[in-house]
Amino acid sequence: MMFFEGSEKKVEAVLKTGNNSLRALGKPFWETMVAQANATILSSVHNDDCDAYLLSESSLFVWDDRFLMLTCGTTTLVQAVTEFLKHFSQNELAMLTYQRKNEYQSHLQKSSFDEDLAALSQLLPGCAWRLGHLDGHHNYIFHSDAPYQPDANDATAELLMYHIQGPAAEYLRRNDQTVEGVRELFDWQGMLPDFQFDDFLFEPFGYSMNGIRGDRYVTVHVTPQEDSSYVSFESNLDQAELLPVLNQLLRRLNPQSYDVISFNLDAELDHDARAQRVDQALQDLAVGYRMRFAHYLVPPSQPLAAIQL
Amino acid sequence: MMFFEGSEKKVEAVLKTGNNSLRALGKPFWETMVAQANATILSSVHNDDCDAYLLSESSLFVWDDRFLMLTCGTTTLVQAVTEFLKHFSQNELAMLTYQRKNEYQSHLQKSSFDEDLAALSQLLPGCAWRLGHLDGHHNYIFHSDAPYQPDANDATAELLMYHIQGPAAEYLRRNDQTVEGVRELFDWQGMLPDFQFDDFLFEPFGYSMNGIRGDRYVTVHVTPQEDSSYVSFESNLDQAELLPVLNQLLRRLNPQSYDVISFNLDAELDHDARAQRVDQALQDLAVGYRMRFAHYLVPPSQPLAAIQL
Repeated sequence: MMFFEGSEKKVEAVLKTGNNSLRALGKPFWETMVAQANATILSSVHNDDCDAYLLSESSLFVWDDRFLMLTCGTTTLVQAVTEFLKHFSQNELAMLTYQRKNEYQSHLQKSSFDEDLAALSQLLPGCAWRLGHLDGHHNYIFHSDAPYQPDANDATAELLMYHIQGPAAEYLRRNDQTVEGVRELFDWQGMLPDFQFDDFLFEPFGYSMNGIRGDRYVTVHVTPQEDSSYVSFESNLDQAELLPVLNQLLRRLNPQSYDVISFNLDAELDHDARAQRVDQALQDLAVGYRMRFAHYLVPPSQPLAAIQL
Repeated sequence: MMFFEGSEKKVEAVLKTGNNSLRALGKPFWETMVAQANATILSSVHNDDCDAYLLSESSLFVWDDRFLMLTCGTTTLVQAVTEFLKHFSQNELAMLTYQRKNEYQSHLQKSSFDEDLAALSQLLPGCAWRLGHLDGHHNYIFHSDAPYQPDANDATAELLMYHIQGPAAEYLRRNDQTVEGVRELFDWQGMLPDFQFDDFLFEPFGYSMNGIRGDRYVTVHVTPQEDSSYVSFESNLDQAELLPVLNQLLRRLNPQSYDVISFNLDAELDHDARAQRVDQALQDLAVGYRMRFAHYLVPPSQPLAAIQL
């Protein structure tokens, strides 16, 4: 069975006002950053607010005063963060968070969160938390120590879906899928009018999409492999625009298990009646975000057959 | 936070009739086996049917025609199995199973199940399965290929408890606990009359117990550490004797999450009304065992605070 770790690592950093624009650093700077994580830039889209790069493993968004980078697989995102911190001192940095999702196969990763934390703590004072039980789905976050107050519209949601099922899941596993077919399946244009999109279909399957509109972004990454499927969606859309998108993704991909992680947002999704919330955690972070984590799953109605290895 | 991996690896092997007794191999043979797993023998009890050894990490039971060894922590049980297979050929072996529970922190293990499987498959034809989803609790099993028919009374149950709560859990975490206090807490004598017991209290906490009566065994291992507590119970008792013991353990330790794994047994426990069965799997193994796996958990009724690292 072919295995690919879809679970992402994620860094977000904000500069203090008065610094030069991060966008002005140009593509070579970001290429170096991405290379530190063992990824490459595949393509990009741009508007007046944001440069959005599609990566060989996930995505990078750069605004004037902040950037966001997500990488999956066995990438080494912590090394990209280390590289960034060589160029920007604590005095220039307003806030930094580094997150890690529990992996399907953590023993295949190049480092553990504990090791990442040790590396980051040497460069930047901060603290770290785990939301969710250690034996179930959970999310790790490190954040800088300096007080920070996010803007009123600075809110983020992540919907992380496992074991997708049904016709959409089957199409996403087909060897003969096309990028047009995937776009139609998700109906990005219908769901997110006025967004500018950039997407990529991997061989033999796997799909990534970045979308931007002004300073708003959406990003989707699909690892469809049966037995370890994973689809992540993340956005900073307002709750009113966001909720219908999250609900449509849930209905379309019909995941057997999913996590909702949010920062300064309390989005109650339209859950399937059979879905159980099996874990939940809430933490007010000193950097001004209320972080929520919840794990939902649809228990199998009868015993499943074992998976032969 | 002090972390210890309670989750066990387990091997069970049965010799064909006509072989010399495994018990006759004597303690030095088994000491070598145990050393291969990076464990040591702490103490033992014996009766006419069985030698039961308490190990620095879990337990070893030896009967004339079979043995069972469980090891936890970062032990290398697969190396003990490899050692055993140097002494006993396929022609002498009736059946062998090798099991591994998903770990709290699989990246700290010396090998993955995939690696163990590769090592075992070189020495013994067999096949391997996973029961339970990869992103949740699950159990791996490798078994030999040769047809095997277990005795009618050859049935086993494992109750694996996570996040124990309440007065018993608190006592088991105390630095001033005594072995008498732990015995009283579990009431082994009351629960398992006529059993012969051997137990050990680790420093600063942690507890192991073996019990034997004729060819029947029970074994309990307690890793009480808050945030990663784990208590395993395993036995080959008849269902009528077994069920009250399992139910009493559940009530006493009040785990937030637990797995029930059984071989040729279908024990329905007296679950707490709030407990949800979140996963279940069933597989008929070619070695004559119907293996069942179920994961239960009690969802938190409100969001938990994050764990600070």
